[in-house]
Amino acid sequence: MTGSKEGVFLVVGCGLIGSSLARAARRFRAAERVLVVEPDAGARAKVVELGIADEVAADVRELAPKADLIAVCTPPGVTVEATLGALAAARADAVVFDVAGVKSSVARGVAQGAGARAAAFVPAHPIAGTERSGPEAGFADLFENRWCVITPEGSAPEAARRVAAFWEACGARVASMGAAEHDALLAMTSHVPHLVAYALTATARAERGGVDGDVVRYSAGGFRDFTRIAASDPVMWRDIFLENRSAVLAALDRFEDRLRELRREVEAGDGAGMQALFASTRAVRAAIVAEGQETAAPDFGRPHHGAEPAGDEN
Amino acid sequence: MTGSKEGVFLVVGCGLIGSSLARAARRFRAAERVLVVEPDAGARAKVVELGIADEVAADVRELAPKADLIAVCTPPGVTVEATLGALAAARADAVVFDVAGVKSSVARGVAQGAGARAAAFVPAHPIAGTERSGPEAGFADLFENRWCVITPEGSAPEAARRVAAFWEACGARVASMGAAEHDALLAMTSHVPHLVAYALTATARAERGGVDGDVVRYSAGGFRDFTRIAASDPVMWRDIFLENRSAVLAALDRFEDRLRELRREVEAGDGAGMQALFASTRAVRAAIVAEGQETAAPDFGRPHHGAEPAGDEN
Repeated sequence: MTGSKEGVFLVVGCGLIGSSLARAARRFRAAERVLVVEPDAGARAKVVELGIADEVAADVRELAPKADLIAVCTPPGVTVEATLGALAAARADAVVFDVAGVKSSVARGVAQGAGARAAAFVPAHPIAGTERSGPEAGFADLFENRWCVITPEGSAPEAARRVAAFWEACGARVASMGAAEHDALLAMTSHVPHLVAYALTATARAERGGVDGDVVRYSAGGFRDFTRIAASDPVMWRDIFLENRSAVLAALDRFEDRLRELRREVEAGDGAGMQALFASTRAVRAAIVAEGQETAAPDFGRPHHGAEPAGDEN
Repeated sequence: MTGSKEGVFLVVGCGLIGSSLARAARRFRAAERVLVVEPDAGARAKVVELGIADEVAADVRELAPKADLIAVCTPPGVTVEATLGALAAARADAVVFDVAGVKSSVARGVAQGAGARAAAFVPAHPIAGTERSGPEAGFADLFENRWCVITPEGSAPEAARRVAAFWEACGARVASMGAAEHDALLAMTSHVPHLVAYALTATARAERGGVDGDVVRYSAGGFRDFTRIAASDPVMWRDIFLENRSAVLAALDRFEDRLRELRREVEAGDGAGMQALFASTRAVRAAIVAEGQETAAPDFGRPHHGAEPAGDEN
């Protein structure tokens, strides 16, 4: 979009995020050519069928030498290994970034494994996604108006600048912070919410006939929203909880403290205490809508069978 | 729509549910005339301005004698009192139902207060809503394809039949069960999810600058979905936790047990255990979508800035 445009962009691992980046790079002309490395044969065939890349290969060593910019979009548990492989196969002037939802363990692993070459690596995390997985799940505007956090503590300034410019060209807003700060923040805004949604969905599944029972039929009272989160990619989330364990447990402690307090209010029948808490949380929603991170439409603007939006009829 | 059409339908309490019922009764011709009783002067003026009723009054005694069917749509904490007032003012052939999210305490209170007249009352709960409140928040197709549970254990069969037919005319699917069964089920599918969302949102609000901080900015990782639930009406939810305390605490116990198990897996780094759990919860989501209680669109079909749905481009 500007002078920051990259020449050849290589995506390593073409799932939801990787395939969205490949599409966005083309759509927004953030790079001249888009290459994809995907080790899974079925996913690779899908990438060819979708036509979202100029070249597709199974091995990073085949395409990395051609690339100016490389995005490692694998599950978090293999991000370090895939990044080291990309750095080893890339030209000296190439820049590599990842997209994992945890940053301290990735930055540490790459620094240990790559030595001086680690300066060409920029840890990055786009805070965007859906509950779908695979190359067919991606779309070009997944990152539009979403934040991408970079943690370039060990990166060359020019490498960080190029990665930031690339994400901005793909529609994202870029923020820079320390890896530890990122991991503590995301533990609260993402990892613990997922943990809670998984636990709640599993609890409901265990009773009343599981997926065939009343819990599913009468889910519209709130439960269904948790199930969307609990439908997220199992491998990615396993890796996140393995890699960000201490920050997750610290945030979980604070949540459990708060839940215990609320339980005591329910036990005691403390209506005033509950009402004050419930009123205070409304403001958080309003702030998120104002920040542009959410739709203001009621019920997320889920489709209804009739035609009219709220309030325009009588 | 059929021979079950009511003559004069009176809504007592014109918030999200009441105003949606008033609109639905007109839109789907479930009643010939729609009257509204609303004690709050501001909300009453809004009802007049919206033009969603043929007559509006402050006192149920003014309009109840004209009504064939009366819907008590107040906050749950005053449902019994409002129902007793409606029964006392209504004609002997009129039928009254409520819409509260708890049923045992309502049924018990009405039975105790109304004596033989309680047979004209049908406890009902439409499992539908949004995070918005007030007469302007309602819309006619809020109930379309949603379930309405009735618990007519103390009701005359003809009264239950009329209430079921009315809800079906308004687009809902009707299920009948015992009040205790309803309360245990909803504790799991609605009340505990709300409790958890309130606690999580309050936890996040308490740190990192609250509503002005990073938690809001980077909410798209999962947290924002909880905040919609935690933006629900504070008075209604206070009342639900007060009225359904024992079922809520029992369901909360089971959730906390499951969460402790998951915490132990995180602490132990048990990747296989986590992955198996996370894979199992995906099936719940698929079942809910198959049941027609949810959109299958990724991320609830939230609007993106670009134009295309997922997967149709390259």
